[in-house]
Amino acid sequence: MVSPIQAYLEELHRRHHLVTDGAVATYIPELAKADPNWFGVCLVTATGSIYEVGDARQPFTIQSISKPFVYGLALEDHGRPVVLEKVGLEPTGDAFNSISLEPGTGRPRNPMINAGAIATTSLVQGKSVDGRFTRILDMFSNCAGRPLAVEEAVYQSESQTGHRNRAIGHMLRNFNILERDPTPDLELYFKQCSIAVTCRDLGMMAATLANQGVNPVTGRQALRGEYVESVLSVMGSCGMYDYAGSWIYHVGMPAKSGVAGGIIAVLPGQLGIGVFSPPLDDKGNSVRGIRVCDELSRYFDLHLFNRPSSAQSAVRARYSGSQITSSRVRSTEEARLLHQLGDGIRVYQLQGNLGFVTTEVVVQGVVSEPGAVRHVILDLRRVLSMNESSCHLFHELLAVLVAQKINLIFTHAERFPLLRRFMKVKLKDRFDQDYRSFEDNDLAMEWCEDQMLEEALPKGIQGLTAAVEDYELFQGLDKKELCVVQELLERRTYRQGDVVVQMGDEAKYLYLVVSGRASVMLQTNNGARKRLATFTAGMAFGEMAFIDRAPRSANVIPDTELVCDLLDLDAFEALSKHDPLIKIKLLENLCLGLSSKLRKSNRELSVFE
Amino acid sequence: MVSPIQAYLEELHRRHHLVTDGAVATYIPELAKADPNWFGVCLVTATGSIYEVGDARQPFTIQSISKPFVYGLALEDHGRPVVLEKVGLEPTGDAFNSISLEPGTGRPRNPMINAGAIATTSLVQGKSVDGRFTRILDMFSNCAGRPLAVEEAVYQSESQTGHRNRAIGHMLRNFNILERDPTPDLELYFKQCSIAVTCRDLGMMAATLANQGVNPVTGRQALRGEYVESVLSVMGSCGMYDYAGSWIYHVGMPAKSGVAGGIIAVLPGQLGIGVFSPPLDDKGNSVRGIRVCDELSRYFDLHLFNRPSSAQSAVRARYSGSQITSSRVRSTEEARLLHQLGDGIRVYQLQGNLGFVTTEVVVQGVVSEPGAVRHVILDLRRVLSMNESSCHLFHELLAVLVAQKINLIFTHAERFPLLRRFMKVKLKDRFDQDYRSFEDNDLAMEWCEDQMLEEALPKGIQGLTAAVEDYELFQGLDKKELCVVQELLERRTYRQGDVVVQMGDEAKYLYLVVSGRASVMLQTNNGARKRLATFTAGMAFGEMAFIDRAPRSANVIPDTELVCDLLDLDAFEALSKHDPLIKIKLLENLCLGLSSKLRKSNRELSVFE
Repeated sequence: MVSPIQAYLEELHRRHHLVTDGAVATYIPELAKADPNWFGVCLVTATGSIYEVGDARQPFTIQSISKPFVYGLALEDHGRPVVLEKVGLEPTGDAFNSISLEPGTGRPRNPMINAGAIATTSLVQGKSVDGRFTRILDMFSNCAGRPLAVEEAVYQSESQTGHRNRAIGHMLRNFNILERDPTPDLELYFKQCSIAVTCRDLGMMAATLANQGVNPVTGRQALRGEYVESVLSVMGSCGMYDYAGSWIYHVGMPAKSGVAGGIIAVLPGQLGIGVFSPPLDDKGNSVRGIRVCDELSRYFDLHLFNRPSSAQSAVRARYSGSQITSSRVRSTEEARLLHQLGDGIRVYQLQGNLGFVTTEVVVQGVVSEPGAVRHVILDLRRVLSMNESSCHLFHELLAVLVAQKINLIFTHAERFPLLRRFMKVKLKDRFDQDYRSFEDNDLAMEWCEDQMLEEALPKGIQGLTAAVEDYELFQGLDKKELCVVQELLERRTYRQGDVVVQMGDEAKYLYLVVSGRASVMLQTNNGARKRLATFTAGMAFGEMAFIDRAPRSANVIPDTELVCDLLDLDAFEALSKHDPLIKIKLLENLCLGLSSKLRKSNRELSVFE
Repeated sequence: MVSPIQAYLEELHRRHHLVTDGAVATYIPELAKADPNWFGVCLVTATGSIYEVGDARQPFTIQSISKPFVYGLALEDHGRPVVLEKVGLEPTGDAFNSISLEPGTGRPRNPMINAGAIATTSLVQGKSVDGRFTRILDMFSNCAGRPLAVEEAVYQSESQTGHRNRAIGHMLRNFNILERDPTPDLELYFKQCSIAVTCRDLGMMAATLANQGVNPVTGRQALRGEYVESVLSVMGSCGMYDYAGSWIYHVGMPAKSGVAGGIIAVLPGQLGIGVFSPPLDDKGNSVRGIRVCDELSRYFDLHLFNRPSSAQSAVRARYSGSQITSSRVRSTEEARLLHQLGDGIRVYQLQGNLGFVTTEVVVQGVVSEPGAVRHVILDLRRVLSMNESSCHLFHELLAVLVAQKINLIFTHAERFPLLRRFMKVKLKDRFDQDYRSFEDNDLAMEWCEDQMLEEALPKGIQGLTAAVEDYELFQGLDKKELCVVQELLERRTYRQGDVVVQMGDEAKYLYLVVSGRASVMLQTNNGARKRLATFTAGMAFGEMAFIDRAPRSANVIPDTELVCDLLDLDAFEALSKHDPLIKIKLLENLCLGLSSKLRKSNRELSVFE
């Protein structure tokens, strides 16, 4: 099936191909050779979907679109303060070829005009001029996701006719913005402008900026994330020369144009657009490029400043320990208690990107919980990203909760090493005590339940050893009947490391736990083991085999030394003949157990569904 | 519990209170009376959380912060093209009090300088000058969420000393930007600048712009959503005078400052910030205001251009009709078929804001589905917003699918009337045929299942009448045993509108469906009715009462004329005595039924959990 987005772009391309306004740049002789009919559009999402139409594979030179990328490289080499000393940040309101140095200091007004870009290029480090150029080329190639190269004819042409830029270079030398002979830096600048790209490359480079510096297809970090916002800022305020204000107003994305007819536009966190069409307007921007971006922005509602709030969707589900319990199967008494006390445990299942406003919603929810809450579990399994702001807020939330003797517990936190490092630095010697983290919600929930039960039950959370009359399966049997079934039982002891029940095996027994603890474990497709249930003294497992005779569907392994009473399947069968009333009671108990499990599953389903 | 965000703001306020740089504005005598110690900060999220510290309730005059709001009003009155004829969009690079008219046309360069703002104010419509001012005041009040008023002393002072602005007014008249005597428009302008606000008001006004023009606390639309992006655009490019480029670079939010010491900053879709501190720097911006915004932006990672991708989280869950079935209980044969064919039904449970990139992820997923898919259900229940771009894409997706004879089905679509209207316009006379929408997923899933079963089963989806040997509960009984239980059954007929089982009633019977259809319905807390299951011929309901003797937990109502065989609870009890082997078989069948329901619940849970 053809994507409707592809179909729309093809229609858009057909329509704008008819536009014949503008003129191909002539100030560099090589550029004048461009075919005014060339026209390509490429849209790449931050999730890596690529849509391209028209002459999207036609090479041309990047020209001024190189400026923001080299600015990023200068920031990586020197940091913001040093770069700011050499190049300013303010739009000039002047035309694209204005020199615009600040009176007095001679500092170029911004890095998107030629003077600023030459100063920026001079900041790129390397052992030699060639080495410096290789760094620029590598960075551009990483952004584009394929190796790029210089278009030699254009470079020669630029170098031979670059008198105005040479004048700028010497003016910058005069003001000591360039601190050495400007000639090598000018050649470097001419060369960076002559790197050949396609419209598809521009789309990928734009998408790399949209994706915090990571190429969304190769997954490679092409520019350090912390500098992407600075690169996009100068594009936003000065990227389209003296059309910058109108561009932001109409199109609403940081952008940069080049005189060869390229334009990139970036919607942060969302997508990048590359357009190529050589005819330019009198401000030096591609005519079709501006119209295509304008229409794409309107048709797809891409304006940066037109964003609905998505903070609410940070909480995927929120539930209490009385709605969902751990897979530790509890005795009737414990279950009753947990149903009462379970509201003291709150789980927030989080998702998406955690930044300030999304985390605020969580923090606000937690600090507004009623007083009875003792444990708050934050589940990070579905969180896509977490920034430092979010770590700050979680640390401060933890401090507030600890002061109220409330536990804050993270699950799946190993996905965000930043959080742990951050907490370690902030909590110092209280880290081991205050920072609680469990592999998953089930283990965290079990720990919270144990805490609550230990407080509430004077003799601790469970009886150590079950007698035959304690088994839930045998409830309702009288003494004589108990004697009959006791005769059928065979006692066995298992050690840790043993396997009590093996998945796929034929079912022969029902197991009644005398003492110790055993868990039902499922091997998932990705090799991880998932706990389905944990049983302790008095409980039964493997009982479904008595009804459906199906092979075992999971492993059961002892968590501790485990003593079980085994009820043989054939012996159970035979009860129909000798003691049908006992069998009826056992089946009724089985039904009750299944129905209680079904109720639990349905209750849990209603939380998530 | 004190929110950690509140605690952080208090600490931030304490620290910046020590800053003593800058000077209170003196060019309007009344402003010079401000206390340089006044200092308030207010942060309001787009979800309506409010945090305020310091002198957040101290009134002061709004001054130039009025400009973007009045610009919004002018856009509402005339639309973008007319307003653009009168006021440009380009930053000037000049100081805050520069006149900056375009050479030739005399059009002010942008609406954030005084000349542009006076021209904007002249565009506000109304029957009289008073009426025009009331409109301005009402709009500001709606943004702030409380009634505002003019600070009369400041207005008099502005009016008496506003010589420079009067000069600008006459210059605009000279160029015919103002088309009549400038005096009333100048008075209106002086008055709009003299509206008294507090720092809390500024925070709310900023949050209203962040929330697409809707005050996040009152829920009232204060400015039409479509113009918010334009207002924020001029704030972004020109809001901080000749500090605009640096501001976007460092703080990364559209903003506006006023000479009384106020600043607003807006992070679209996320939050608004108001700061108030009268001492200004030499560019006319509040010194503490800039520092506070700068620190808030860094500490909470608020920079507009530093956004991770959240497109992936648009799909909350994705499953097929073989993972989750409708609550229509199927016969064994139907269930087997649906398990085979269920992959032909795909459900996308969507969430969050649907715009271009989020919808793209859905569209991309759907067009990449394998060829066997016949039905695609898009569940909109958890979608927060849907824009026109999303409607475009869904319409185009529908066209692509219809061409492949695949159904596209929306559920919970009544939440987005825009979608239906859009489809109606686009699909024209194919609307009734191609646009499919169901109240919820369960009904949509049932419809898809029926379609598949009708194709696959030659004799249609179900037998019309069940005989006693067809009942699933009686499987495994021999002829003689069937005769015994048949004696215990009592046949009853129900009509639509009857109630077969009433929630809360004592349980007396188990029901076996002879013919017709009945549904188990639960009344939810909000009055809605939720279907739990639908039964047809051969199936049993109400069976749990035979085990737990609990009162009925839901209603059962006939969907059609319904004939049932009722099995009396006492008669079932009595089987223990006379025919224990029959009772054992019935209990085993009950266990099998329960266990199959439990497996279905657990399978569904694993999709969502």
